[in-house]
Amino acid sequence: MESQLNPHISVDCVVFGFSPNGIKVLLVKRELDKLNESPTPSYDLKLPGSLVYNDELLDDAASRVLKELTGIENVFLERFEVLDSLDRMKNQKDKEWLESTTGLTIDRVISVAYFGLVNLADSELNGLSERSKWVTLESAIQLPFDHSKIIQRARELLLHSAGTEPIAFDLLPEKFTIFQLQQVLEVFNGSGIDSRNFRKKLKTLDFIVPLAEKQINVAHKPAQLYKFDRKRFMQFRKQKNASFI
Amino acid sequence: MESQLNPHISVDCVVFGFSPNGIKVLLVKRELDKLNESPTPSYDLKLPGSLVYNDELLDDAASRVLKELTGIENVFLERFEVLDSLDRMKNQKDKEWLESTTGLTIDRVISVAYFGLVNLADSELNGLSERSKWVTLESAIQLPFDHSKIIQRARELLLHSAGTEPIAFDLLPEKFTIFQLQQVLEVFNGSGIDSRNFRKKLKTLDFIVPLAEKQINVAHKPAQLYKFDRKRFMQFRKQKNASFI
Repeated sequence: MESQLNPHISVDCVVFGFSPNGIKVLLVKRELDKLNESPTPSYDLKLPGSLVYNDELLDDAASRVLKELTGIENVFLERFEVLDSLDRMKNQKDKEWLESTTGLTIDRVISVAYFGLVNLADSELNGLSERSKWVTLESAIQLPFDHSKIIQRARELLLHSAGTEPIAFDLLPEKFTIFQLQQVLEVFNGSGIDSRNFRKKLKTLDFIVPLAEKQINVAHKPAQLYKFDRKRFMQFRKQKNASFI
Repeated sequence: MESQLNPHISVDCVVFGFSPNGIKVLLVKRELDKLNESPTPSYDLKLPGSLVYNDELLDDAASRVLKELTGIENVFLERFEVLDSLDRMKNQKDKEWLESTTGLTIDRVISVAYFGLVNLADSELNGLSERSKWVTLESAIQLPFDHSKIIQRARELLLHSAGTEPIAFDLLPEKFTIFQLQQVLEVFNGSGIDSRNFRKKLKTLDFIVPLAEKQINVAHKPAQLYKFDRKRFMQFRKQKNASFI
């Protein structure tokens, strides 16, 4: 009976990195040397993740594993899904790797997935460990376990959140132009936004506040600067409960 | 190491029962005879819940345990929270009971909570098992584990859902009066709703459709009947993403 009531529990972290050229995702190298006879080091890439300790909160496990495996700290991680498919470990290599690294017999792992977003321009990201790597979303496919699927779900959440959370403004400088805001939202969207409609819509949003200032030291005609009013944004969200994009 | 990476995982179901007099919650008797020397049967009440089998989806575990413990089937159960506090089993009695009924040594259980709502007037609920019981929310306090807290969270979800999901209309007859709708919403709210404002607001909602019919066989002046247009409601929700109450 014991072995029948004992799925293990893990956390997996999807950390997206924002850059003007697109979104990347943070993966870690998984050493596969123990699993084969190859004399040269061999690895593939997976999400940062770990089984959860008996005396550890899920949120703490997520922060711990992110720090241990990638070196990154102080990222706001949001719990977004519980993955419990029976075929999460259908690939025998994944089961063998997990058992060899933990010393446990593991038939099943139910995983709690976390989501985070950082700005790749942020200097605090310099401490990235050697075993971790930012990769494009296009190349984050065919990963171990169901990690490609988890990334896909997180991507959908990011798209949704971009219109309902203040994350776009967290990535912008304090004073920004409408063009800069549009560029950030286009990266989230993965496609272009019609400039004219976008500017028209923004005029109706009181949390995007025009300043009595324009850009300085630019080669082109200086553009109007704006700031983000977080309090008004929260009121907007409470009243409308709708996407602003 | 083995014992350090091995929290158990369970499901717990909060099933609310709607009646015009208020909301009730479905609890099951927990036999405590094994834990003491008392010759008379002794029990307390808890949420229907169970550890999850290795080959069982969380959703399936929730449906299974609800059926096994209460006899109720075909309730739509929604996953709404993962409970992972380190003090969920701080009461030694809970740990002893869990270990005596499972035959396992269990230091920690992380639980996935489910939420459901049924109409207590529904005849299909007649098959309720003897060990289960509908109790008022006021009396569902000081339950084992963190079950009182789980119920409180589910209650908050119910209040929120009443304005954003079609659940009020699922509880009404196909043709209903505004007074009947108001009564259902007042039960969810736990307090009165101002009739005049409520009627004014409803006139702006195209998914509450007036019929060319009035009540029949009533002692008072027959009231206008309405029907619920689910398609329009879904459109409303998509466009506004807001509560209709």
